[in-house]
Amino acid sequence: MKEQKQKGIVDKRDIGKVEGENKGESSIISIDKIKRGLTSIIEERDFEQLLKSGKTLRIKLGIDPTASLIHLGHLVLIFKLREFQEIGHEVCLIIGDFTAQIGDPSGRTSLRPKLSEHEIRENAKEILIKVKRFLIEERTRVYFNSEWFKSIGTTKLFELFSKGTVAQIMAREDFKKRMQEKSPIFVHEFLYPFLQAYDSVVVRADIELGGSDQLFNLLFAREIMKEYGIPPEVCITTPILEGTDGKLKMSKSYGNYITPDEPSEDIYGKLMGVDDELIFKYAELLGGYENNELDELKKIHGFEAKTQIAFKITARLKGEKEALRAQEWFNKVIRKKEMPEEIPQIHAREGEILQKVLKEAGVVNSVSEATRLTEAGGIYINGEKVKEKFFELKKGEYKIRIGKTKFVKIIVE
Amino acid sequence: MKEQKQKGIVDKRDIGKVEGENKGESSIISIDKIKRGLTSIIEERDFEQLLKSGKTLRIKLGIDPTASLIHLGHLVLIFKLREFQEIGHEVCLIIGDFTAQIGDPSGRTSLRPKLSEHEIRENAKEILIKVKRFLIEERTRVYFNSEWFKSIGTTKLFELFSKGTVAQIMAREDFKKRMQEKSPIFVHEFLYPFLQAYDSVVVRADIELGGSDQLFNLLFAREIMKEYGIPPEVCITTPILEGTDGKLKMSKSYGNYITPDEPSEDIYGKLMGVDDELIFKYAELLGGYENNELDELKKIHGFEAKTQIAFKITARLKGEKEALRAQEWFNKVIRKKEMPEEIPQIHAREGEILQKVLKEAGVVNSVSEATRLTEAGGIYINGEKVKEKFFELKKGEYKIRIGKTKFVKIIVE
Repeated sequence: MKEQKQKGIVDKRDIGKVEGENKGESSIISIDKIKRGLTSIIEERDFEQLLKSGKTLRIKLGIDPTASLIHLGHLVLIFKLREFQEIGHEVCLIIGDFTAQIGDPSGRTSLRPKLSEHEIRENAKEILIKVKRFLIEERTRVYFNSEWFKSIGTTKLFELFSKGTVAQIMAREDFKKRMQEKSPIFVHEFLYPFLQAYDSVVVRADIELGGSDQLFNLLFAREIMKEYGIPPEVCITTPILEGTDGKLKMSKSYGNYITPDEPSEDIYGKLMGVDDELIFKYAELLGGYENNELDELKKIHGFEAKTQIAFKITARLKGEKEALRAQEWFNKVIRKKEMPEEIPQIHAREGEILQKVLKEAGVVNSVSEATRLTEAGGIYINGEKVKEKFFELKKGEYKIRIGKTKFVKIIVE
Repeated sequence: MKEQKQKGIVDKRDIGKVEGENKGESSIISIDKIKRGLTSIIEERDFEQLLKSGKTLRIKLGIDPTASLIHLGHLVLIFKLREFQEIGHEVCLIIGDFTAQIGDPSGRTSLRPKLSEHEIRENAKEILIKVKRFLIEERTRVYFNSEWFKSIGTTKLFELFSKGTVAQIMAREDFKKRMQEKSPIFVHEFLYPFLQAYDSVVVRADIELGGSDQLFNLLFAREIMKEYGIPPEVCITTPILEGTDGKLKMSKSYGNYITPDEPSEDIYGKLMGVDDELIFKYAELLGGYENNELDELKKIHGFEAKTQIAFKITARLKGEKEALRAQEWFNKVIRKKEMPEEIPQIHAREGEILQKVLKEAGVVNSVSEATRLTEAGGIYINGEKVKEKFFELKKGEYKIRIGKTKFVKIIVE
């Protein structure tokens, strides 16, 4: 493939040098491992050729800082990047601080709400802190795409737009659907793929990684790179991870997510609550297992396998010590339905209402939260579900469990 | 209508002051005259209100300098602008030196060829010289849209694109057709209407004038102006003028045009060659007649009316004296089939070929041009059409006519 330096394209390859070298390392982690869990590789032959070339490859991932939350769905991608780094390659993290203002229409059924520059900046800051923990610092290049988009100039921008056709963009499934449903597609959304593609042109990505809902954007980037006369990136995608409910895509809006920022107990506990089937997808995408290890896991008893997977993923997120602590806690508190050793004590008087006492003690935020929890069957008194929305306390000592993990002792005088 | 000054929009209204005032003048040229020949006025009520308001209105016309030729098709618009100036209004001439690089897709069935910045600049210079002759200098503001588009910045540009939807643009007939025919629409073409609309936002046009093929762009500008919170311009369009062939739109590419840069004889002669029906459309759009004058003209004999119209239009383009000269020449040379008094003489020898002699004398550019002319029946010898592609000359004196207006005498010895 001929690689020409085109006039008028910012070339960011030369900024900084990658320190890690990949001499011989590629043999340690096999191509098979890198391929594991990918839903598509376009083109596969080019992918293998690149990996065998001995070159330090530039693996691009674009993140639009539309929110600051990083959950396991994102970590699937980050862990995949890490695998590339471990065999010596370089990660190009594109923080889409410009594109976030426009909003990626991928998979959307309507226009995204517009974020302010300040929100975007704050989100970007947090994301970088969270993500960098899982990457090898000296093999990570961070770019903000406002750097080139703010100064690109109208003429060059229109040059970019002249490299694609309306039909190419309208071929997207999400756009087709919106057109059919007469849900408006605003023209700035329509232009989004050009910007994502231009990022690839600027950083001269060898490979771009994305969720499988990004496939259109990634393939479009290939076309645009060709138009600029540079070798098209190889596109690789990972599956969309279902959330802890086992149904919907893991997402902030569905509340079915696990983030590495939660306490280890919550992470471990939530993982243990994941469906027996789905947990193997989690294992494959997040556990960092070798293929044969995964095969072994599938042979053992479901609950035991889940315990191992929950431990492994918690350890990857929080470290082994934390994972161990979480596991012990889980076995003691949840599995054996025991209470933790030290639990807070609350004093109350006879005739008071349990839900109000919990609010006053700060265990819940409001009485209505407590009544909702009661209705949902989430409050236990000495191991029995509380059924009354306004439960009157009698004299005595009670062990109260709120949700899965909160415990208090109430002494009623 | 509330007119707010929006943050971030260049407001060009304040550049320079118009010197002409329109006190009372509006009664001289009636609203009816201004309306004459227009194919659409949107909205008509707003149009009348504006004209009656006593305000100096800003009448916008956009010209993309994709070529330097100005023909009668363009002058239909320029003469309409002049009418507005004569009742005191201000013309905003937008030279689309930026948009010319993109190319208006209106009515196009394929992508326009791309022009260089130099070509555009040269075209713009020529167009301005040609067009200004027909306008009142102190009531003409000239803008180059590169002035705002080069510096608009990516964020503001995307703000502009967010104000329209894909469905709005795809509603265009020309785009629908191209989509159906699977002829690619490049995305920069797709964006063209936004730029034209933004010109209206910048100059705060009260009225925009265009050919009827511009209706989509003009209506879109109204929508975009509303989105920016400013009063939408009134859109007015003139009909498309057929060329001298009476069939196709007058256009450089069809060679069926008349330009004010031609000799008066050619203009007058070409006008006399226009179909008896079509000449009244020319009269209406280019003659500057009052309504009753036009009605009178239609009552008189076709040829006589055409003579008057050809004279009137030639006079508007070249002045009365020139028109008179052209008319005299036409009556003498063409109508009475007489030869002009002084015609060049060529000497030839017996046996020579007429078509070669004409080439050698520089009357035609090549022998093949002469044979083509012969085939088309455009060469006469003593008033008779020459039929032979290679006509052998015999001794004697011959009067040769080439086309309508070129004459030579050949003396064969």
